[in-house]
Amino acid sequence: MGEGDGAPLRPWPLLSTEALADFVVFRVRRELSENPRTGEPHRFVVFEGSDWVNVVALTGGGELVLVRQWRHGTGEETLEIPGGTVDAGDPSPLAAAVRELREETGYASDDWTELGWVHPNPAIQSNRCTTFLARGCVRVGDPEPDGGEDLLVELRPAAEAAELVTTGRIRHALVLVAFHFWRLREKTLTR
Amino acid sequence: MGEGDGAPLRPWPLLSTEALADFVVFRVRRELSENPRTGEPHRFVVFEGSDWVNVVALTGGGELVLVRQWRHGTGEETLEIPGGTVDAGDPSPLAAAVRELREETGYASDDWTELGWVHPNPAIQSNRCTTFLARGCVRVGDPEPDGGEDLLVELRPAAEAAELVTTGRIRHALVLVAFHFWRLREKTLTR
Repeated sequence: MGEGDGAPLRPWPLLSTEALADFVVFRVRRELSENPRTGEPHRFVVFEGSDWVNVVALTGGGELVLVRQWRHGTGEETLEIPGGTVDAGDPSPLAAAVRELREETGYASDDWTELGWVHPNPAIQSNRCTTFLARGCVRVGDPEPDGGEDLLVELRPAAEAAELVTTGRIRHALVLVAFHFWRLREKTLTR
Repeated sequence: MGEGDGAPLRPWPLLSTEALADFVVFRVRRELSENPRTGEPHRFVVFEGSDWVNVVALTGGGELVLVRQWRHGTGEETLEIPGGTVDAGDPSPLAAAVRELREETGYASDDWTELGWVHPNPAIQSNRCTTFLARGCVRVGDPEPDGGEDLLVELRPAAEAAELVTTGRIRHALVLVAFHFWRLREKTLTR
């Protein structure tokens, strides 16, 4: 089909690897790999961290459960779907998603579907982010934010999801990823 | 509408900031900020880097121009749309997109539309990624990969984009972001 279709892509022989730093969210290492095209060594930096999850959380009334929070990377408030890291104590990505939804929003669901997973940035990160759909979400208590969080829960009609993206109210790449998985699966999901 | 709708989200007072490292792709700094909910200081790590661009590149025949490459974060081959960083010499994100399309694929276009931009990870990164649509792409020469690249160009019917995602052939979060912008804008784009 395409010009490179089916042709073998050559792996890059790893020449050396070196731990550089541990920033809690990521351990950083430098790798020296040989470019199979040129035979020349080239340095790459790799950020190793936990896997992530996020949740398209819908109430029985057709509303999205969203969170507003201060994001320190950009230094501004964001509107996002709930999510976080798969911690050492989480037996699975699904368990992490259930926990994050409860902690960040106070909502719970007994109707979970895995929508898909991505590499947030395969060029420099090794981790995955898995998106879940939680339907029939109900509020079961107060949010339980950790010491690094200050959240506000916000409900929006699910039909507004596209508008939240096109107007720029939602700018987080992994939320767009979640919405994309959700749209692609919408027709095949049982109601 | 939602429970937190319209309520002011409190900013986190910045208590201190400290440069930690420079990994070329990112400079890393540690910030100490006060949680406005608890009054307690909390440490955050921020990765500062260049802005990024990517391109949904379509030929006149309705094919997507894609690239296969080895990704060192995940240690495996990926299928992606063309893209890269906005370099110091690029006068704009659009100029970077035009350059990356040409360098990575050998294709060029004179019909460009900005589809939108995201924060790849507002929790820990300050940068943006802007997605462009380039229509009527034609091959004008050989790709011109840099020393850190070994690429294969692959053409796929644009109608297969959803399938490439649902089958897991495309796993790069920012490619799903680009496809999401593209789908949301499809109906309003002039043909």
